[in-house]
Amino acid sequence: MAKKMSKVFHKKFGQRIRQLRKERGMTQEQLSFEIDADNSYIANIENAHRDIPLSRIYKISKVLNIPLKDLFDF
Amino acid sequence: MAKKMSKVFHKKFGQRIRQLRKERGMTQEQLSFEIDADNSYIANIENAHRDIPLSRIYKISKVLNIPLKDLFDF
Repeated sequence: MAKKMSKVFHKKFGQRIRQLRKERGMTQEQLSFEIDADNSYIANIENAHRDIPLSRIYKISKVLNIPLKDLFDF
Repeated sequence: MAKKMSKVFHKKFGQRIRQLRKERGMTQEQLSFEIDADNSYIANIENAHRDIPLSRIYKISKVLNIPLKDLFDF
């Protein structure tokens, strides 16, 4: 059986979102709003406090204007 | 606001999983089992019938032995 998503991987994904968001001068609340999520959603993602569905990863890639696979380039 | 995950993107993701799974000689049921999902889970993913959380995308990448970002290389 495959192992669970590692904490290290989960944290790296959150850090990657944070890095890309900051490069674009957006707040966590702004990015949350743009993907139709509640105010604290992106904060929770960046801190690896919750899982995220592909549909929302897709939305983030559109808002950040980056190919989806590049979100995982870390 | 970001647009919804497009049907085209969703289908391409499913086709990518199907391609990689077949290359490894696995059935949909085998891959479902390996990621601790119910029997029809991968069939639903390959046919773009359901969303998928990052934790399961991660497990698929481990079972298929491919960097996660390469799952989105299509």
